[in-house]
Amino acid sequence: MDLLLDRTSSTPLRQQIVAAIRARIESGEWSPGTRLLSSRDLADRLGVNRTTVVQSYDELTASGLLESGVGRGTFVRASGERRDERDRPTASGERPIATAPPRFPSASGPLAWADRLARGRPLPRLPAADDATPRVALARAVGHPTLYPVERIKTALDRVFAARGRELLAYPSPAGYAPLREELARRLARQGVDVARNELVIVNGSQQGLDLIARLLLSEGGTVLTAQPSFSGALDLFRWHRAQLQGVPAGPAGFDLAALDRTLAATQPRFAYVIPDRANPTGLSLPAGAREALLERLQAARVPVVEDDWLAELRRDDEPPPLKARDRDDQVLYLGTFSKVLAPGLRLGWLLVPKPLFEPLLALKKISDLATNFPAQAVLHELLQSGFIDSHARDLRVQFERRRDAVDAAIDRHFPAAVRPLRPHSGMVCWIELPAGSDVARLVEEARREGIDIAPGAPFDAIGRAPPAFRLSYSAASEAELEPAIARLGALLHRQLLGGSHAAPPLV
Amino acid sequence: MDLLLDRTSSTPLRQQIVAAIRARIESGEWSPGTRLLSSRDLADRLGVNRTTVVQSYDELTASGLLESGVGRGTFVRASGERRDERDRPTASGERPIATAPPRFPSASGPLAWADRLARGRPLPRLPAADDATPRVALARAVGHPTLYPVERIKTALDRVFAARGRELLAYPSPAGYAPLREELARRLARQGVDVARNELVIVNGSQQGLDLIARLLLSEGGTVLTAQPSFSGALDLFRWHRAQLQGVPAGPAGFDLAALDRTLAATQPRFAYVIPDRANPTGLSLPAGAREALLERLQAARVPVVEDDWLAELRRDDEPPPLKARDRDDQVLYLGTFSKVLAPGLRLGWLLVPKPLFEPLLALKKISDLATNFPAQAVLHELLQSGFIDSHARDLRVQFERRRDAVDAAIDRHFPAAVRPLRPHSGMVCWIELPAGSDVARLVEEARREGIDIAPGAPFDAIGRAPPAFRLSYSAASEAELEPAIARLGALLHRQLLGGSHAAPPLV
Repeated sequence: MDLLLDRTSSTPLRQQIVAAIRARIESGEWSPGTRLLSSRDLADRLGVNRTTVVQSYDELTASGLLESGVGRGTFVRASGERRDERDRPTASGERPIATAPPRFPSASGPLAWADRLARGRPLPRLPAADDATPRVALARAVGHPTLYPVERIKTALDRVFAARGRELLAYPSPAGYAPLREELARRLARQGVDVARNELVIVNGSQQGLDLIARLLLSEGGTVLTAQPSFSGALDLFRWHRAQLQGVPAGPAGFDLAALDRTLAATQPRFAYVIPDRANPTGLSLPAGAREALLERLQAARVPVVEDDWLAELRRDDEPPPLKARDRDDQVLYLGTFSKVLAPGLRLGWLLVPKPLFEPLLALKKISDLATNFPAQAVLHELLQSGFIDSHARDLRVQFERRRDAVDAAIDRHFPAAVRPLRPHSGMVCWIELPAGSDVARLVEEARREGIDIAPGAPFDAIGRAPPAFRLSYSAASEAELEPAIARLGALLHRQLLGGSHAAPPLV
Repeated sequence: MDLLLDRTSSTPLRQQIVAAIRARIESGEWSPGTRLLSSRDLADRLGVNRTTVVQSYDELTASGLLESGVGRGTFVRASGERRDERDRPTASGERPIATAPPRFPSASGPLAWADRLARGRPLPRLPAADDATPRVALARAVGHPTLYPVERIKTALDRVFAARGRELLAYPSPAGYAPLREELARRLARQGVDVARNELVIVNGSQQGLDLIARLLLSEGGTVLTAQPSFSGALDLFRWHRAQLQGVPAGPAGFDLAALDRTLAATQPRFAYVIPDRANPTGLSLPAGAREALLERLQAARVPVVEDDWLAELRRDDEPPPLKARDRDDQVLYLGTFSKVLAPGLRLGWLLVPKPLFEPLLALKKISDLATNFPAQAVLHELLQSGFIDSHARDLRVQFERRRDAVDAAIDRHFPAAVRPLRPHSGMVCWIELPAGSDVARLVEEARREGIDIAPGAPFDAIGRAPPAFRLSYSAASEAELEPAIARLGALLHRQLLGGSHAAPPLV
């Protein structure tokens, strides 16, 4: 549970803060003696009035949950019950020497941390794998479970264990299984990437790749330039690393170049985070000219580029190559994942960096977890080398194109005329903008009650607003579920837009 | 390659610095334009005279590898060849807009980073998995490949894929596979751990557990208290996180309590890192009374404890339980690994923390890589639940005890009388102290030339000295290799000790 304030909710912020703190204390997550941030610090971090926090703390103190002393700070109070438990003689008859809790540093105390995420936004919720709910999954950019090639992966496991089972149980190399690194490098070279000037590291999904980059390039904080909107998981990660985010609007024609120029004139970002193809959350790809214009400007400003090519395997021959293929100044860090076109449970991604960054990156990977699961790497190698990934990706592309077309047609039929998505390249998601003032939180909640999950726009907003938009994924549900779900969403939209719910809320 | 100075080498430090920088430039790891640390900063960080660094830079400048300008700093010079390549028109006939390299922040520049590891020490080298050398492996604390139960792991994979293959390919829960977490918690409860007041997270080997703890508790730096000597991988990690290390001597009777009291009076460590059982590198376990004395003092000083129970599954019923079983104040963070008693290639470990730390820990795990490889977690669950791990650990313990006894007897026969190991509990390693002034680096090098790898004492030294000691692992070689290797080591020791090589070096 994160201390996440919902500014679109009708519940006052004070009540939200009280409820969140109360829940943590009553669940035992915050034990007696836990020190809270000062009201000033918490107010700063949450971006609310200090008075709001003082009132919240006062209310919790009156309820007996918190206690404070001048110059001491505010603490979780030991309840009668908890104090009994804590002072109870242990089995051996001894009494604890001290009832004071151990000193965990305040900078990483629970509240500070929860808040650090709340200032950013929590990562998208990952449902438990055994959560076999009948809900229609339009919220998450993952493949429907039937799209995972489970039998073929099992065959690959059998093969690699038969060929080199014992080897796969030893410590893998930190950079990754050498034949897999070479196979991936060969594939990148075919896309025009100058692999000789770069080095590739296998990581636990591209999330680890992004975290390693952030640890490498944001060790002293700084600004990150992103598209607006951009991938929520990356924005959360950058915020967690205390980065300032500078969102530059991006649409079907590419980045708003005037806004980009203004941003580059005003700041020196540590890097620009870009998803040039089938972007998350918009589904849009940058046109060729827009790629050139973007790279030119970032090159002139000497801003490193982090290119997230999350659906690289879906790229058609007639589409532009990745930015990395045009990287003339060793400026682009390039990452990919096999969570989307193979299976997320294997936790496999890769990161290609200019040679000067390889040694520090490898040191960080070793520090982080020594290396990536070895059998999974060997399985991926077998699936790449045998050509399976290529044919599977072609199948997926056909599926996703068909789904995209079905979603487009259903939206035409069922959504109000004022609500049209940006026509996405075939990927996993599209982005639907509503008229200004629309109540997205209410739409998401109403859809949820009808069994349909969609992703509100707020987590994708670099600036931290809650834009009138939502992301609709067409990859995670079954194909048959798409049209009926969109019809129901359309009904909700008609009701909401006609009902004028985006006007001022009623006074009572 | 790390910029690691070897103070025990006869090569002057200046030459070592020159060679290390030259190698990076010539290999292309540092491209033209890479900015080096100032001579003052590099000297500070390496702990050498500034003059030494200035002379090194001068020499490299004279060779045309570096260039510098007043007020600009020192840079890798573009060689003629490289400059040609860089200015060459690209395929499309365009010229690059700027030849200036992208700005990677200096704090994470290659030299600063390499140095950050060099100030600490590099992680133990992990040989490539396919490195089928005939060397005798007495350096690494891993199991011999024949000890990995490869067939049984394959059977477990078949079972879990048959039962729930599709589920294992979806996103796992960030905290870990629920049945595995429950199984591990049940086992800890049987050891007397109060699991209800704690939460367990599955991690990619205990290295990730340690890194998450360090990110959690060392976010603002601080001091870490460790045994002296202690596990090199942990010391490196803490140094990487900019921690100051305070080593407290520990021997067969436990920690030196007077030294511990002095340290606790002088500093407030962020946490104490302790391996109470079959410690790395000494092989010693803390006696029961020494555990109580240690915990009492750390409790009174309110110092959190990080307990690394790397060989937990080898614990016999008549041995004391882990410190965590006595944790009355939610003070102990407790971690374990299946790299030693199962197989390191699966990258499986776990971390049990007091409830207030669970939420920030989980947030960090999500940020780091979302979750741990799912099939590996299911395999471990099957191997635990079926009882296989228990019987396998019993077999390993018998093997390791037999090896320990063989090593003890061989040392008695072959080593000089002045060189005796601390009698270790049966684990994977023992620690061998040599007479003061012995040349360990030379011994390690001579052994290496004879095909025997041993681990010098320096990386295990919290204070950063090179103590006259080495670690001998008896788990990584085959049993038959142990006695002959120890006989050869004994001959080297006899020659070195009799030859007086630990006296002053010759003047010419």
